[in-house]
Amino acid sequence: MNQATDTPVDPVTPAAADALGGLRLPAISPTADLVQELQLRRQLNPAGWPDHALGRLETLGVQLALIRPLVEAEADEAPQLVVFAADHGIADEGISAHRQAVSTERVTRLLAGEAPVNALLRQQGFSLTVVDAGLAMPLPAQLHDSEHAQLLVRKIGHGTRNMALSAAMSLPQAVAALHAGMDVVRHLPGQVLALGSEGVANDACAIQLLSRLCGVPLADACGQLGELTEAQNRHRLEVLFAAAQRHRKAVTPLEALATMGGFEIAMLTGAMLQAASERRVVLVDGFVASAAALVARGLSPAVADYLVYAHRSAEIGHRLLMIHLQAQPLLDLDLRCTQGVGALLAWPLLQAARHSLQP
Amino acid sequence: MNQATDTPVDPVTPAAADALGGLRLPAISPTADLVQELQLRRQLNPAGWPDHALGRLETLGVQLALIRPLVEAEADEAPQLVVFAADHGIADEGISAHRQAVSTERVTRLLAGEAPVNALLRQQGFSLTVVDAGLAMPLPAQLHDSEHAQLLVRKIGHGTRNMALSAAMSLPQAVAALHAGMDVVRHLPGQVLALGSEGVANDACAIQLLSRLCGVPLADACGQLGELTEAQNRHRLEVLFAAAQRHRKAVTPLEALATMGGFEIAMLTGAMLQAASERRVVLVDGFVASAAALVARGLSPAVADYLVYAHRSAEIGHRLLMIHLQAQPLLDLDLRCTQGVGALLAWPLLQAARHSLQP
Repeated sequence: MNQATDTPVDPVTPAAADALGGLRLPAISPTADLVQELQLRRQLNPAGWPDHALGRLETLGVQLALIRPLVEAEADEAPQLVVFAADHGIADEGISAHRQAVSTERVTRLLAGEAPVNALLRQQGFSLTVVDAGLAMPLPAQLHDSEHAQLLVRKIGHGTRNMALSAAMSLPQAVAALHAGMDVVRHLPGQVLALGSEGVANDACAIQLLSRLCGVPLADACGQLGELTEAQNRHRLEVLFAAAQRHRKAVTPLEALATMGGFEIAMLTGAMLQAASERRVVLVDGFVASAAALVARGLSPAVADYLVYAHRSAEIGHRLLMIHLQAQPLLDLDLRCTQGVGALLAWPLLQAARHSLQP
Repeated sequence: MNQATDTPVDPVTPAAADALGGLRLPAISPTADLVQELQLRRQLNPAGWPDHALGRLETLGVQLALIRPLVEAEADEAPQLVVFAADHGIADEGISAHRQAVSTERVTRLLAGEAPVNALLRQQGFSLTVVDAGLAMPLPAQLHDSEHAQLLVRKIGHGTRNMALSAAMSLPQAVAALHAGMDVVRHLPGQVLALGSEGVANDACAIQLLSRLCGVPLADACGQLGELTEAQNRHRLEVLFAAAQRHRKAVTPLEALATMGGFEIAMLTGAMLQAASERRVVLVDGFVASAAALVARGLSPAVADYLVYAHRSAEIGHRLLMIHLQAQPLLDLDLRCTQGVGALLAWPLLQAARHSLQP
């Protein structure tokens, strides 16, 4: 059993860190442990029951138990939802049904306890942390001490630059965002982190990352937005094509993230890496968080052992990404909202999977 | 709004009752109410959010709210799981991996609080009622006052007859079982009933009902059981073919139920009809309960408005049945156990769908 809970934060050699633009990756241990896994599987299949009676919950239960022994995990659970919010310069191209200001409006509602996810938070006993990773507009001052959520302002900039015209972020900005994401997680309690996002046009970043890092043709990854007209959808694809063409040399996960990602995606990536290094379970919500998972896996493959994909959303890009990550999300409810709704809906299944392993 | 909560139990004319072998069907009002539905859908799609942000949860929320206004439903919730257990003569043909006695063993474990579903019951706050609809073996006496469940003995017989040799039940037996199912529900509290089943070889009954009432070829509905060898699987299909051939004249839902169903399936059918007539939500678990839903819809189509399919199980027959019922179950976790596990796993989604409609 490799329960390296207190792994050092900086295992990379200075040379490797230089190659990654100064990025310091935390060390992540794979959870694989064949002996323990066999033991768990036996425990899940008592005599007299159909084999694999609990289906995919078994796989989930084993994954959770390998991350951390269940008794320990239950004692110190305190599940957290962290929503990273940021704006995207590409929204200026008119590729989304909303203006950039809508991101700030949505975060305002979330902090005021009026978003769809707020009712779920109370129901499931999660604490909410909202991170302003780089919204274009300022949040109303009175929300800084909201009773519904903790607000952390870790602004890297007032929205990224327009990736159709230049790189969305400089490499130092991307690295700063990654480090900020790690830092946020380092200061949060809890064994389970649900990670969501908010930001108008951040689906464009997710589509670019999917296309670049998995080799999915842009037209496939892009799909059609129901809210846009046919001409607008065509324009959206053209803009994405032009941006991909401009950044054709960005082929590594970090380069793709910097040139075509967003502040919240970089922070999500950092948060996932840090959570995995501390042996916490990461509940991944939606397309944008899954794109961050894709980057995180590119930077440190062992992170995959700690990720649980909550749901398959209605977006075609998310479906393709799940296929490429060989992930079977727990739910498939055609959700179209981010902010962690899917992650919170999936949470009772994690609890059930854990309970099924208890005597 | 048609909130006919206190519908009379016996709306059928004596002539109609005679045609159904004396079966007294409770009156079920359809829930359709276009004005209210539009209102609910608007409430679910506030301005500034993506359209249909909550995907299939919206449809579920609307269904629940049409069954009963949410405020009223929450006040008096008391969710119940009812597991109907019975044995099947067809098990003598060696078409299942287990002997008939295993049904009784499993029910014993369930009553002793040692089945997979017991942990979920505690977690979700359900009360458990186990109905002995016709187990072949007696249950240990000390379990009659189990602390984990209420046991109701409504035995119609010690297992059905072997449907490969004769009708599984006589028509009066089937009608008695249907009435017993209604009676069980009439005496239970709660606004939500999760219905599960237990009984070795009851999948054979579900397969026959699917094949007969939906016109699915037996070989398709039957699939292959992983626990059986290829020769045993072939034998299983042959036995089912012979039984279907023997009862080729049983084409109505009631006839098919009597000749090829089981005591627990008939009771499940009765329970669904009664629950719908009292405007309660029915959470349908697994293949066998879904086959009962098929029969219930045949007897009284409006029952469909009250049924929520909890999960799509690993059995091919269940997948085909869901297609024929045009039902989209909430979960798809490859579960292979009955007893209501899937229904309890889906319960938090019902709660979330309700909460999403609250201000």
